Amino acid sequence: MTVSTEQAQEWLTVAVAEARLGLAEGGIPIGAALFGVDGELLGRGHNRRVQDGDPSMHAETAAFRAAGRLRGYRDTVMVTTLSPCWYCSGLVRQFGIGHVVIGESTTFTGGHHWLAEHGTGITLLDDPGCVRLMTDFIAARPDLWQEDIGA
Amino acid sequence: MTVSTEQAQEWLTVAVAEARLGLAEGGIPIGAALFGVDGELLGRGHNRRVQDGDPSMHAETAAFRAAGRLRGYRDTVMVTTLSPCWYCSGLVRQFGIGHVVIGESTTFTGGHHWLAEHGTGITLLDDPGCVRLMTDFIAARPDLWQEDIGA
Repeated sequence: MTVSTEQAQEWLTVAVAEARLGLAEGGIPIGAALFGVDGELLGRGHNRRVQDGDPSMHAETAAFRAAGRLRGYRDTVMVTTLSPCWYCSGLVRQFGIGHVVIGESTTFTGGHHWLAEHGTGITLLDDPGCVRLMTDFIAARPDLWQEDIGA
Repeated sequence: MTVSTEQAQEWLTVAVAEARLGLAEGGIPIGAALFGVDGELLGRGHNRRVQDGDPSMHAETAAFRAAGRLRGYRDTVMVTTLSPCWYCSGLVRQFGIGHVVIGESTTFTGGHHWLAEHGTGITLLDDPGCVRLMTDFIAARPDLWQEDIGA
């Protein structure tokens, strides 16, 4: 599957909107969205640790869940504001999601190199807005951030 | 952390009870439970793909979720009826769960060797009851099983 930078940047706006929604709710500002290859939005979501007291709802798992039961993910693209942690990278690998678009991996690097080694397409955008969002959040709430990644 | 085979087998009964509950509900019979090092039950759950239409609720994620927000998983043990898939193995690695007890890996092998390489303690019980449960289920509902592992 080929994903252009322009397409990736457009899709990223949905994930960023989710991240900002999470921040406004008092949560951890990471957002994600799952798209079909033709650009249809299948599911979107954000981290819900604080809002629902649910440590299992990372942004990527929330978007995956919102998409409901699907038969095959090869032609889907997971778009996330931040490099996916091992939990979310494992999700991508297990379900064979074809491509991952990542807002930034400056503030945190999860398993996206591992995913690339196993055949997942990766687009890393290095988006300054995404970097700022996480940098500000980590400075403001280091406790919450560390809890979210099990550090 | 040291987990004796006797302790592992006792804990496994909770995961098996969850798997059987899932089967009785018409779901995929995989169960899990998260225990503290002193044997306290922190959370238990089973696969809820069918019951809730939720592909993100594997047995291990359901048990992890049921345990709520915790600060540190190093001294916890994830007990599951089946070798954890990449998604659930990623969960274990990201949150640094100290030990995983596995009912069987005959019908499916996920990422438990990878976890062992990265320092997670693994107890593989090779339990005949767990093998039978999954063998019967896969024979009866191969479609559902393949959907659940993204095959």
